[in-house]
Amino acid sequence: MKNKLTIVKIGGNVINDDIALTTFLTNFASIEGFKILVHGGGKKASKMAERIGLTPKMINGRRITDAANLDVVTMVYAGLLNKNITAKLQQQNCNAIGLSGADANLIKAHKRIVKDIDYGFAGDVDEVDDKVLKILLENNLTPVFCAITHDKNGQLLNTNADTIASEVAAALASAYNVYLIYCFEKKGVLKDINDDDSVIENIDSESYKELKQKNIIVEGMLPKLENCFYALNKGVEKIIIGNPSVIVNKDEKYTSLKV
Amino acid sequence: MKNKLTIVKIGGNVINDDIALTTFLTNFASIEGFKILVHGGGKKASKMAERIGLTPKMINGRRITDAANLDVVTMVYAGLLNKNITAKLQQQNCNAIGLSGADANLIKAHKRIVKDIDYGFAGDVDEVDDKVLKILLENNLTPVFCAITHDKNGQLLNTNADTIASEVAAALASAYNVYLIYCFEKKGVLKDINDDDSVIENIDSESYKELKQKNIIVEGMLPKLENCFYALNKGVEKIIIGNPSVIVNKDEKYTSLKV
Repeated sequence: MKNKLTIVKIGGNVINDDIALTTFLTNFASIEGFKILVHGGGKKASKMAERIGLTPKMINGRRITDAANLDVVTMVYAGLLNKNITAKLQQQNCNAIGLSGADANLIKAHKRIVKDIDYGFAGDVDEVDDKVLKILLENNLTPVFCAITHDKNGQLLNTNADTIASEVAAALASAYNVYLIYCFEKKGVLKDINDDDSVIENIDSESYKELKQKNIIVEGMLPKLENCFYALNKGVEKIIIGNPSVIVNKDEKYTSLKV
Repeated sequence: MKNKLTIVKIGGNVINDDIALTTFLTNFASIEGFKILVHGGGKKASKMAERIGLTPKMINGRRITDAANLDVVTMVYAGLLNKNITAKLQQQNCNAIGLSGADANLIKAHKRIVKDIDYGFAGDVDEVDDKVLKILLENNLTPVFCAITHDKNGQLLNTNADTIASEVAAALASAYNVYLIYCFEKKGVLKDINDDDSVIENIDSESYKELKQKNIIVEGMLPKLENCFYALNKGVEKIIIGNPSVIVNKDEKYTSLKV
């Protein structure tokens, strides 16, 4: 029988708020068994870019990563955030190890091919090294991934944290029963964007198609759900989308996804 | 019989120069067998601190690390430098894994106790986890340490990179034949600071005392050599102080230290 592995992805709503982050990390540390954390960067990278006089470039809500902005996200994601999160998990006796995709060649990516938009040093994932990840997990270490990868040719790349979570989950699905939890500011996927309680509690491939056709799932939620169904189709056991408190509070409403 | 482990520490002269760094990393990647890299931060942290409007505080050539400057060194050392070095080693097929002391609780330190000078968030090393380091090494990973540690209570700390190198070397001396190489801008410990070729080729505990008494070894070189003799007394096989090229060019002059 396969062991359970819990993978949690946190984004801006937790990262930007010190108290929320501390609460979340305490809860995350209490998860039993194998676990992995993936974190985004929130607004800290944009703020740092502004402080050093750079203008963050966004197209369709996605960051355009030129060389100067790549340095900023590398500093903020892999340095400031990743090491502070790791130190705080260590405080909670969770043996965290902070990682980028360059470390141990864990996540190899390629610079996104230019079609209509040149995203700069944005990386699309090619391969996750499940062998080294298993060694870390089996030695009771808890990998903490920031959203930086590399191309194995010396180039770091800025990669979407949701994608990293789903790719890592997919890569480990044959070795573990993987539960993937996406934490964000809402309680789940909403039927009505203006009603926080209109959580759609279950989505499968069939109902997902319907929700797309009816324009209930739109914009930012689309790539998130595409990532989810990608991971489910690769053998991930279950995916939850919800509020950060969902990792400890089972009474909380959330969206549960199955193939 | 114990396996050989080569630990190399690089500082500002390599870090600040992109071409020198690339040459060094190519040479480092070619070292056979187990190896660890420890890097300082050079001038990049001071430059970044200036860019965001902070004034780096130095007393007796040592950085005073207030909270804002700790964020800067965490960003630059653990983020920008550590991940770029790791990515460049990966390009050379060296399976590098970038680490701070917080990662896997590898280097636990405490905030330096205030006597005459308050160094702020400067960390003095308490303990190195040799067990996890051995697991990484035996799985063909090459640890790359930046000069950031933690106190296991959630606080990151800025720690002297020379000290990290000697503490890691000392912790692994019972498991490996450790060769520790300190690379810096000179060819070795000089008899005459104005003559780059006046390298003292061999120093042992006895001659070290003499060199101190005669004021031949002074200032910045004193803590470096204290670190060296600390590591030698803990069982490190051999220590070399020299130019970065010493790791591949055996004809190069250098200083060799033994107990």
